[in-house]
Amino acid sequence: MEFLKVDTVAAARRKLLDSAKGWLGAAELLPIEEAPGRILAEDVYAPEDIPSFRRSTVDGYAVVSGDTAAAGESMPVFLNVKGSVEMGKTAAFSISRGECGEVPTGGMLPEGADAVVMVEYTEAFGGEGVAMYQSAAYGENVVQTGEDAGAGDRLLPKGKTLLPQDIGALAAAGVVEVSVYKKPRITILSTGDELISPAAYPAPGQIRDINTYALAALAEKNGYLVVGKSVLPDDEGALERTIREGMKTSDVVAVSGGSSQGKKDLTREIIDRASSPGVYTHGMAIKPGKPTILGYDDASHTLLSGLPGHPVSAMMVFELLFGWLLREITGGGQAPFIPARISSNVPTSPGRLTCWPVRLEWAEGGMTADPVFGKSGLITTLTKAGGYFVVDRDTEGLKAGETVKVYLF
Amino acid sequence: MEFLKVDTVAAARRKLLDSAKGWLGAAELLPIEEAPGRILAEDVYAPEDIPSFRRSTVDGYAVVSGDTAAAGESMPVFLNVKGSVEMGKTAAFSISRGECGEVPTGGMLPEGADAVVMVEYTEAFGGEGVAMYQSAAYGENVVQTGEDAGAGDRLLPKGKTLLPQDIGALAAAGVVEVSVYKKPRITILSTGDELISPAAYPAPGQIRDINTYALAALAEKNGYLVVGKSVLPDDEGALERTIREGMKTSDVVAVSGGSSQGKKDLTREIIDRASSPGVYTHGMAIKPGKPTILGYDDASHTLLSGLPGHPVSAMMVFELLFGWLLREITGGGQAPFIPARISSNVPTSPGRLTCWPVRLEWAEGGMTADPVFGKSGLITTLTKAGGYFVVDRDTEGLKAGETVKVYLF
Repeated sequence: MEFLKVDTVAAARRKLLDSAKGWLGAAELLPIEEAPGRILAEDVYAPEDIPSFRRSTVDGYAVVSGDTAAAGESMPVFLNVKGSVEMGKTAAFSISRGECGEVPTGGMLPEGADAVVMVEYTEAFGGEGVAMYQSAAYGENVVQTGEDAGAGDRLLPKGKTLLPQDIGALAAAGVVEVSVYKKPRITILSTGDELISPAAYPAPGQIRDINTYALAALAEKNGYLVVGKSVLPDDEGALERTIREGMKTSDVVAVSGGSSQGKKDLTREIIDRASSPGVYTHGMAIKPGKPTILGYDDASHTLLSGLPGHPVSAMMVFELLFGWLLREITGGGQAPFIPARISSNVPTSPGRLTCWPVRLEWAEGGMTADPVFGKSGLITTLTKAGGYFVVDRDTEGLKAGETVKVYLF
Repeated sequence: MEFLKVDTVAAARRKLLDSAKGWLGAAELLPIEEAPGRILAEDVYAPEDIPSFRRSTVDGYAVVSGDTAAAGESMPVFLNVKGSVEMGKTAAFSISRGECGEVPTGGMLPEGADAVVMVEYTEAFGGEGVAMYQSAAYGENVVQTGEDAGAGDRLLPKGKTLLPQDIGALAAAGVVEVSVYKKPRITILSTGDELISPAAYPAPGQIRDINTYALAALAEKNGYLVVGKSVLPDDEGALERTIREGMKTSDVVAVSGGSSQGKKDLTREIIDRASSPGVYTHGMAIKPGKPTILGYDDASHTLLSGLPGHPVSAMMVFELLFGWLLREITGGGQAPFIPARISSNVPTSPGRLTCWPVRLEWAEGGMTADPVFGKSGLITTLTKAGGYFVVDRDTEGLKAGETVKVYLF
């Protein structure tokens, strides 16, 4: 058995980012209807003022605000109605002192007007006169030209994950196609002579494959596009052929399994042989997930990874490496988290970063994180958890009541 | 103008739920690969023990734990190797006191063994003897039969949104198809003579349609399936025809727009005419979003809603009514939230529930929510926010430093 240096998570991330920089992170143009949840690959600017004219926010009368200064409930101000604005049309008249114009919610203010008095505070009489029982300050009940966004303003920043309101803002600006980061393509392989399809019934010694299912869902959740998925026996030739195939169609090939030392070594050797410069991380100081391998093939631009066979370990490592990588490449920044107090002491492994699944509960005035204790081979450890927190490798255990950052699953 | 009773949000929700109960919430069977993010429509039980045999979690030797009790670094215990277990196969031998069996990580324990000693703490010599330099407690390095889930155990509860690990757990249990709630079908209409397509250039008085884009994305995010989407002028006949068409294909028809009082009344009248028993909520005590209409057609099983025209109002109302409804129907429970301290005082409207968009920031030891102040007609009020909090109608304003529950957009 070779003794190979184990990387810290920080070192492994640095190497992973170095090998992905420059080629992972291509952009594609998408119609805005298809862009929710995608990450903007460039800043978006408002090409013109939004709105492009002054709009009323109420049903009422557009006025010169100074005219209404003296208006009150017992002392109305009388104005002449110059005209009525139609929705969606130019205000076909302008007003001067002593005049006003009827305007619907969303309608354009006529030239000369600078405020709107709500219809509830007015009384029309005769054909052309209206009494105002309330004053309007300059700009009151008006959305100014460019108030939502001015021409040339940055509407949305590069790196933003597009929310429904962002799609609305793009529509408002007339941006109907948007440049977003392409989803990196990933092939997920699971190896082991003991693995059978979930549709089959296990004979003694066999278990159903969990990892291609859980990792594919996790990869999609993290913004990857799963282009291939297979379960393989522990067969050197078959594994190497399938990895090489995956490298042709994928940006990432992730192989989980090879739990025993011999199989882990084999996976590492195959990845190293199939790629150049090859494997650069031979293990990672993380719990669970130590037997993590990372490598890179420069010719095909493929990241290669050997993930642990235990489902909890494989998922945590995927999240911490490939989830992190995509946020880093796209400028998506830190994952959102919920601060919570842990409900019990948790041990850590000095020198190794530790991931703790937790159940979140809201208790009087604060959020509590209950650590879910369980072996990393048990998938139900994770189904009982709503999120996880990470303890740095330099921290020596946490006491009940300390606050941690919980990342939601 | 009729004076109609305005509902509290709680009352409107109760009516909405009453009219949706019993028919919204049908289930469908999906392959587990297509089920991530969907909501379980029934409890899922483990049909058999997972795993179905005792597995080793390490590479090592399966032993009778009692045999190793005296083992130590300077005083090994010597055992006879009875055989070697192959991955994915039945252990073809059993062991008795004084014996052990080689077993790989994930391999089956031979009968008679009750613990595993890691290979690192052993030394093989000759062909059939091995020295143990560490003791193993009963059950050490073993996953017991049914330890992940026992036959008949509830694996996942009805109402759970399926996460990647849940898909993994279903695979482990051999459940390859799962019953999830169908996505309710929704038609989204936006009305207004001022509205043009985002692809067009607005003439004075015109603005681009925001609401069908933002609401469609929001509806999808909340688990609805958008089956129709149109922008219409303020034309009574066209609106009625389109609503009636939508009722044939949809579980929900939502009409946003009709900002002016006359248009609002018209939308309400059309919805009331097109449905039976018709409109039951004629306005809602919420800010922003007061002009919200709710109705129901019993014959076609359609929920009908008139949403405010202002995009911020329309989105907040959709979230609070239709986002809430689906969680309620499916048992999804409360939306996840982040507790945060508000950074400034916020005014409220007594008697009305108030929604405040906020920017979230992590500051030393806690999460801060900065209220984003802005008119509800400005979509950029929401693009600057990461979430929102809700102030109950009985609360009279909040002071800086108070903790609120922030729901993420």
